[in-house]
Amino acid sequence: MVEETIHKVVKELSTTESYRAVYRSAKKGVTMPSIDALEEIMTYLRRILFPGYFAHSEVTPDTMHYYIGANVDKVVRLLSEQVHRGFCFPCQDEGDSACEECVNDAQELTLQFIARLPVIRRLLATDALAAYQGDPAAKNVGETIFCYPSLRALTHHRIAHELYKMGAPLIPRIISERAHSETGIDIHPGAEIGDHFFIDHGTGVVVGETCIIGHHVRLYQGVTLGAKSFPLDKDGKPVKGIARHPIIGDNVTIYAGATVLGRVTIGAGSVIGGNLWVTGDVPPNSRISQGEFRTTPLQDGAGI
Amino acid sequence: MVEETIHKVVKELSTTESYRAVYRSAKKGVTMPSIDALEEIMTYLRRILFPGYFAHSEVTPDTMHYYIGANVDKVVRLLSEQVHRGFCFPCQDEGDSACEECVNDAQELTLQFIARLPVIRRLLATDALAAYQGDPAAKNVGETIFCYPSLRALTHHRIAHELYKMGAPLIPRIISERAHSETGIDIHPGAEIGDHFFIDHGTGVVVGETCIIGHHVRLYQGVTLGAKSFPLDKDGKPVKGIARHPIIGDNVTIYAGATVLGRVTIGAGSVIGGNLWVTGDVPPNSRISQGEFRTTPLQDGAGI
Amino acid sequence: MVEETIHKVVKELSTTESYRAVYRSAKKGVTMPSIDALEEIMTYLRRILFPGYFAHSEVTPDTMHYYIGANVDKVVRLLSEQVHRGFCFPCQDEGDSACEECVNDAQELTLQFIARLPVIRRLLATDALAAYQGDPAAKNVGETIFCYPSLRALTHHRIAHELYKMGAPLIPRIISERAHSETGIDIHPGAEIGDHFFIDHGTGVVVGETCIIGHHVRLYQGVTLGAKSFPLDKDGKPVKGIARHPIIGDNVTIYAGATVLGRVTIGAGSVIGGNLWVTGDVPPNSRISQGEFRTTPLQDGAGI
Amino acid sequence: MVEETIHKVVKELSTTESYRAVYRSAKKGVTMPSIDALEEIMTYLRRILFPGYFAHSEVTPDTMHYYIGANVDKVVRLLSEQVHRGFCFPCQDEGDSACEECVNDAQELTLQFIARLPVIRRLLATDALAAYQGDPAAKNVGETIFCYPSLRALTHHRIAHELYKMGAPLIPRIISERAHSETGIDIHPGAEIGDHFFIDHGTGVVVGETCIIGHHVRLYQGVTLGAKSFPLDKDGKPVKGIARHPIIGDNVTIYAGATVLGRVTIGAGSVIGGNLWVTGDVPPNSRISQGEFRTTPLQDGAGI
Amino acid sequence: MVEETIHKVVKELSTTESYRAVYRSAKKGVTMPSIDALEEIMTYLRRILFPGYFAHSEVTPDTMHYYIGANVDKVVRLLSEQVHRGFCFPCQDEGDSACEECVNDAQELTLQFIARLPVIRRLLATDALAAYQGDPAAKNVGETIFCYPSLRALTHHRIAHELYKMGAPLIPRIISERAHSETGIDIHPGAEIGDHFFIDHGTGVVVGETCIIGHHVRLYQGVTLGAKSFPLDKDGKPVKGIARHPIIGDNVTIYAGATVLGRVTIGAGSVIGGNLWVTGDVPPNSRISQGEFRTTPLQDGAGI
Amino acid sequence: MVEETIHKVVKELSTTESYRAVYRSAKKGVTMPSIDALEEIMTYLRRILFPGYFAHSEVTPDTMHYYIGANVDKVVRLLSEQVHRGFCFPCQDEGDSACEECVNDAQELTLQFIARLPVIRRLLATDALAAYQGDPAAKNVGETIFCYPSLRALTHHRIAHELYKMGAPLIPRIISERAHSETGIDIHPGAEIGDHFFIDHGTGVVVGETCIIGHHVRLYQGVTLGAKSFPLDKDGKPVKGIARHPIIGDNVTIYAGATVLGRVTIGAGSVIGGNLWVTGDVPPNSRISQGEFRTTPLQDGAGI
Repeated sequence: MVEETIHKVVKELSTTESYRAVYRSAKKGVTMPSIDALEEIMTYLRRILFPGYFAHSEVTPDTMHYYIGANVDKVVRLLSEQVHRGFCFPCQDEGDSACEECVNDAQELTLQFIARLPVIRRLLATDALAAYQGDPAAKNVGETIFCYPSLRALTHHRIAHELYKMGAPLIPRIISERAHSETGIDIHPGAEIGDHFFIDHGTGVVVGETCIIGHHVRLYQGVTLGAKSFPLDKDGKPVKGIARHPIIGDNVTIYAGATVLGRVTIGAGSVIGGNLWVTGDVPPNSRISQGEFRTTPLQDGAGI
Repeated sequence: MVEETIHKVVKELSTTESYRAVYRSAKKGVTMPSIDALEEIMTYLRRILFPGYFAHSEVTPDTMHYYIGANVDKVVRLLSEQVHRGFCFPCQDEGDSACEECVNDAQELTLQFIARLPVIRRLLATDALAAYQGDPAAKNVGETIFCYPSLRALTHHRIAHELYKMGAPLIPRIISERAHSETGIDIHPGAEIGDHFFIDHGTGVVVGETCIIGHHVRLYQGVTLGAKSFPLDKDGKPVKGIARHPIIGDNVTIYAGATVLGRVTIGAGSVIGGNLWVTGDVPPNSRISQGEFRTTPLQDGAGI
Repeated sequence: MVEETIHKVVKELSTTESYRAVYRSAKKGVTMPSIDALEEIMTYLRRILFPGYFAHSEVTPDTMHYYIGANVDKVVRLLSEQVHRGFCFPCQDEGDSACEECVNDAQELTLQFIARLPVIRRLLATDALAAYQGDPAAKNVGETIFCYPSLRALTHHRIAHELYKMGAPLIPRIISERAHSETGIDIHPGAEIGDHFFIDHGTGVVVGETCIIGHHVRLYQGVTLGAKSFPLDKDGKPVKGIARHPIIGDNVTIYAGATVLGRVTIGAGSVIGGNLWVTGDVPPNSRISQGEFRTTPLQDGAGI
Repeated sequence: MVEETIHKVVKELSTTESYRAVYRSAKKGVTMPSIDALEEIMTYLRRILFPGYFAHSEVTPDTMHYYIGANVDKVVRLLSEQVHRGFCFPCQDEGDSACEECVNDAQELTLQFIARLPVIRRLLATDALAAYQGDPAAKNVGETIFCYPSLRALTHHRIAHELYKMGAPLIPRIISERAHSETGIDIHPGAEIGDHFFIDHGTGVVVGETCIIGHHVRLYQGVTLGAKSFPLDKDGKPVKGIARHPIIGDNVTIYAGATVLGRVTIGAGSVIGGNLWVTGDVPPNSRISQGEFRTTPLQDGAGI
Repeated sequence: MVEETIHKVVKELSTTESYRAVYRSAKKGVTMPSIDALEEIMTYLRRILFPGYFAHSEVTPDTMHYYIGANVDKVVRLLSEQVHRGFCFPCQDEGDSACEECVNDAQELTLQFIARLPVIRRLLATDALAAYQGDPAAKNVGETIFCYPSLRALTHHRIAHELYKMGAPLIPRIISERAHSETGIDIHPGAEIGDHFFIDHGTGVVVGETCIIGHHVRLYQGVTLGAKSFPLDKDGKPVKGIARHPIIGDNVTIYAGATVLGRVTIGAGSVIGGNLWVTGDVPPNSRISQGEFRTTPLQDGAGI
Repeated sequence: MVEETIHKVVKELSTTESYRAVYRSAKKGVTMPSIDALEEIMTYLRRILFPGYFAHSEVTPDTMHYYIGANVDKVVRLLSEQVHRGFCFPCQDEGDSACEECVNDAQELTLQFIARLPVIRRLLATDALAAYQGDPAAKNVGETIFCYPSLRALTHHRIAHELYKMGAPLIPRIISERAHSETGIDIHPGAEIGDHFFIDHGTGVVVGETCIIGHHVRLYQGVTLGAKSFPLDKDGKPVKGIARHPIIGDNVTIYAGATVLGRVTIGAGSVIGGNLWVTGDVPPNSRISQGEFRTTPLQDGAGI
């Protein structure tokens, strides 16, 4: 009886109509990107970017280049492979001609990415400073590098964003989702974010694909920088790639739970109060807030 | 002095009054369900449901039944054991008679569950399509299967829900909590959810035990489908099992941060704006939204 | 060409101006605290606090003291080491004299902490009861201990809070962030929390450093107990350590998404409705709520 | 073509005539003994027997009983299970009646075994002393406990031997083979070995099932204490359980590569030279040796 | 001073003259064969060959083909890759043309190998029987499959031998060395071995590359079937591939420590005594043995 | 009853008289050397010595110094710690004064060791060449580096020998025993071995502490270079450190199973036949061998 049930369900699950929509066939033998390999790559990148924090605490200025060199070399090997798999993932090409080219493109893209590491580090150093200055509970900058979700999420984002700009498919998204899962901060790899960025607490923050965020911006938990409704094409599919998320000016602060939707502009220096719902432009240096609570008596026995 | 402190605290922690309320004694030698085993089971189920995505990328239509067969067989063995442990967890029976029966029940329940896998797959295929159609940033359906939190959470939910309906104690909850931890999406195993369901971003979403959700529904991050206050029995314990969560019609969209509470009905085709607070019925095809922000000037130096 | 790029970027990343702000040099050879060791410590502590739940399910009252004894002894060894690393983390001292003292202080602090375990267990037992009584979906107390995020987060918090009060740097924060990552519940180790505390669902909850929370308090997902703007010192750094978060009285319930900011007091027995924004004191036994939704028709085609 | 080959070979390997002789069907759902579990058990036993050497180096006389208690309790649980599986391994019984009894027998046997641990430790302490006294290269007794193959092999043997005497099937053999693989020393669990036993270097040593070895015996690498030819029964199967290996008296030393075969007796105090071939009794206090080499010139160009 | 030493030695180790003789450059980016992957492959092969012994003990005749199918498919993927790396290992080709061909050759060779699995299983079944019949201590055939070094070594050998015959470089050797390390039995993959082969105890056995061994042969520990001196070519390198090891007839038994050297023939049915040194042909059905020991008194105080 | 037995045995095992001889108390809190750390160190050393073989196959001459640099730095950190633990292992000092010194000594010793790596590599390169030239079955030098037990054992030995000469306690022995366990080759760290050394097959080879072996020496499996009996001091302990093992001249070959005992000299260019027993000096260029077998008929039915 056990075996019968098993055979029956296996047979059913192996029919074309059952698996068609959820089956992924390896194009030309290239397997799926590896989540584990990308985790390993992120580990090496974190060690490169923040020497002495995430491994080999005893690294000295004098021996640092050995570790950075070995880790950069490993990242080049590992990431080229994953970027290549990312290229293959959506590939519809049935012929063989383009494959070698893809391998080369993946390596070249990876080298371009590597060349951006000093810039990425520079930005993250400003983010660490912003976290320290933005949180009275922070005792020193190092603490924010070592254990703040903001820095964790931004390390993933600034890496994913570079790969996104260079046109790597899928890989940036996987890197972002990893940070999302760990921190509850969901920044799309496409979002452009200036220096000195800080997200306090962070759980529930959403930053959309076409956001443009200035320098010295601070967000609190639960802030959404999202899209309003989006147009569908004639097949009913969403039109992709339209600028549909907010532009946030320099020195803006947005408090917990606020929602800013659509291609609106929050002018520089503005402060957006918590739980607000903003769907229009806000002029520079505005301060907008929700009214205080009303002491409406609740009906008896109703709870909320 | 070290040893003294250790002995003292060990002695105190080993007294009946200290451990009574937090100690779990193994009934008849049956140990706690294993989180690790359940993770392993979920891994096999993901491989069964989405061939080629989560392992063995090279699987072909021709060899697929081997992998599905082996994985289904493993799930039967492993899950039966865990379901049995789940049965034992709340067991108050002091005698021995029912134990053998429990083992058989666990196996039978597991076989029933296995038989539902084709249906679960069919539903998840519609969820993947809904994710693709609902997110302009999605490049293809495969991407949503491979790395969207919505699909991850729904895979867990649709599995947990079947087990919940069949009466398996504890196990469905553990499966759900695992998805909750990874994605920030908290769907109670009891919730009934139609096809083509999509949760964008997802962090902070809560879907309560007695929710009934139609087809083609879309939720955004931070949406709560919760209960209002619940009645207590004469011992002050909450009365269990009362229908207390919303009913959501087909083709409803609920935007970020909205809260719908109580056994209310959101009529089919409605759109609920972000951050809204809904505690009454909404007629079909309604569109309700929060007002725009007010530009109240903040007091100087007060931030928010 | 590959090697050239690698050499160039390694050289750049190894310059003082590149790494200065993000490099951590090991003071006197003491390495960074180990996240893995702290996870291991938390595992032992969970086994000590809840015998039979998280390992060795077969433990009996009769053999319990062996397991508790061995685990307490391991915690003393492992935690002393980590607390010592925490002392070293922000250390600016260039001389050698204080080091031995730090080692002793770390051990003494750890012993003090160990002595608090019975109290911690007693509080967590009340939290488990509160979870069971506060959630109609909970079948028994054991289920809340084994798989509720509330208990997971509070186990971390009550441990971190003791270490925080004893003056251990960094370590409490790491322990809290771990729970934050797993549950989406972000409780600062400094927060004082009474017994019978329950957080339902939990994702997005933020409890600030100087919060004082009474007994029998219940929070729902997305609740923020935060600070309003904070003063900066003359160097533009936030002034640390000011009481800036709410005081919550006994028997208060705060529903999903509500935000309470600043050193305000929510009087005992009050109920704060969901999504509310509270920045002033609330008298005891108040019940405040948001108004119901308005059925404003949306403009056609605008979605939200 | 790939799939064809796979299908063909799978089909062939799944025929009864192909798998019959090499297939093991789980009797009543009881799986094979677990090599990994037995390794884990050996780890716990080593920690029990030699406190401070193989884990928890900081154990003090004062906290020792916690560790020993917890480890003994774990061994009881784990080993009972493995002993039970060992009982099932050769079981031909098709009915159900004996199973419960087997479980009980396994537990009882395990408790008997546990009760022998003090004796096992006492013997191993003499073995460590013998190793130190027998090897001029040994600097102290602790070194022989921590890294000598002799102690490793004897720890396995003295444990396996107790289980063998109590009638546990299969498990003792697995434990012995593990030591054999690690050290090249192959002692059958049946062999009776007195105190102060030392095997120097050890690779290639074979000690047969029915050997009886006195006290203060020393063997060198490559020594065989084996059987001569053994009688077959009328089915051509070897007759099992006949005393067929040597008896070695107290204070005997046998040098490298010597072979002693059959139920012969090497009298107490004897010294057997290296590479010797002994198939008869040797009186007490004998010293037998091979003659010196002969300088026979080799033929030119022939090597050996 | 530390850094100086490090820099100096790193510099020295990075000079061409230092690393030249011990550096392996990856030809065309193909890395070294992976020991870990080969271990994994051996694990799958063991599960295929002996269903129910080494994993999934609950496998039934009815579900067996799923497991065998999935495992065979995995072996095809994994082994093709390793065989390809083996082809690249000694490759001197500087051009690109042959690479694609190598990939195809590796896959084809692997498929040929797979097709031989039924034959390999059939031989191993006879080896298990021989072990049972050859060892009075063996209680049943299953015990020899599960834990006898003879079966472990022969499983490796019979697999390695097939790969060797098909011309796979390096891989067979790695597989053999793995068994050598675990069992002390060193059989060169080139050796041809008939059915019903048994090696008792096994440590120290050496079977050379060009050995030909008949059916029903039994060896004991320490037996060498080796080569006499081998000719060098004009560059002083050993001439490869000459038949230089013994031919052993059917039903031969060779006792512990015996050494048979050169292309000699041991006639069928012969018995070679332990520790013997044989460098000439032995006629069928011979029984040769070493003389008994001589009781030469040792000089006083001399030991051996 | 279970608990009673456990308590009884735990109590007995925790008495001073039971554990005294087998308990190791951590001197000044310094724990036992870590076998795992030493394995990790050996892994790094193998990567340093043989670039491209054991990890990072893609390493190029151009990036090699990064990997070597990082690995050397890691070895310095890790090995200093282990050497220090080795110093503490036999320490009888009850005061505190010497500890700091020990830490410094350990670091200095480690730096001296590191400085020897180029020499160690040079010797191992000659050993690889010797293996290739000494084994007709070897296809190229790389194969001997990658998978020959001879190279594995010599890598361990040449490292252990340097540490031994520098006076590191215990650590060299652990390193040697690890090779012994993997290869069956037991070379004491004290043995001095010239270049171009090769051990074919290797299982059962023993090379004693005070051996001196010349250049271009070749041993086969089962060869012992051991001590005759050793003198005891007035306490009955073996007198340590006496030259008691053979001196082997250049270009000597010793065939399988031969035993050379005592401080004898085998003259350069000699060939020692298999299974021989040598306890006296052998003049240069000798060729000594065992006589051929005798065809003594065995008694009927006796086997051997």
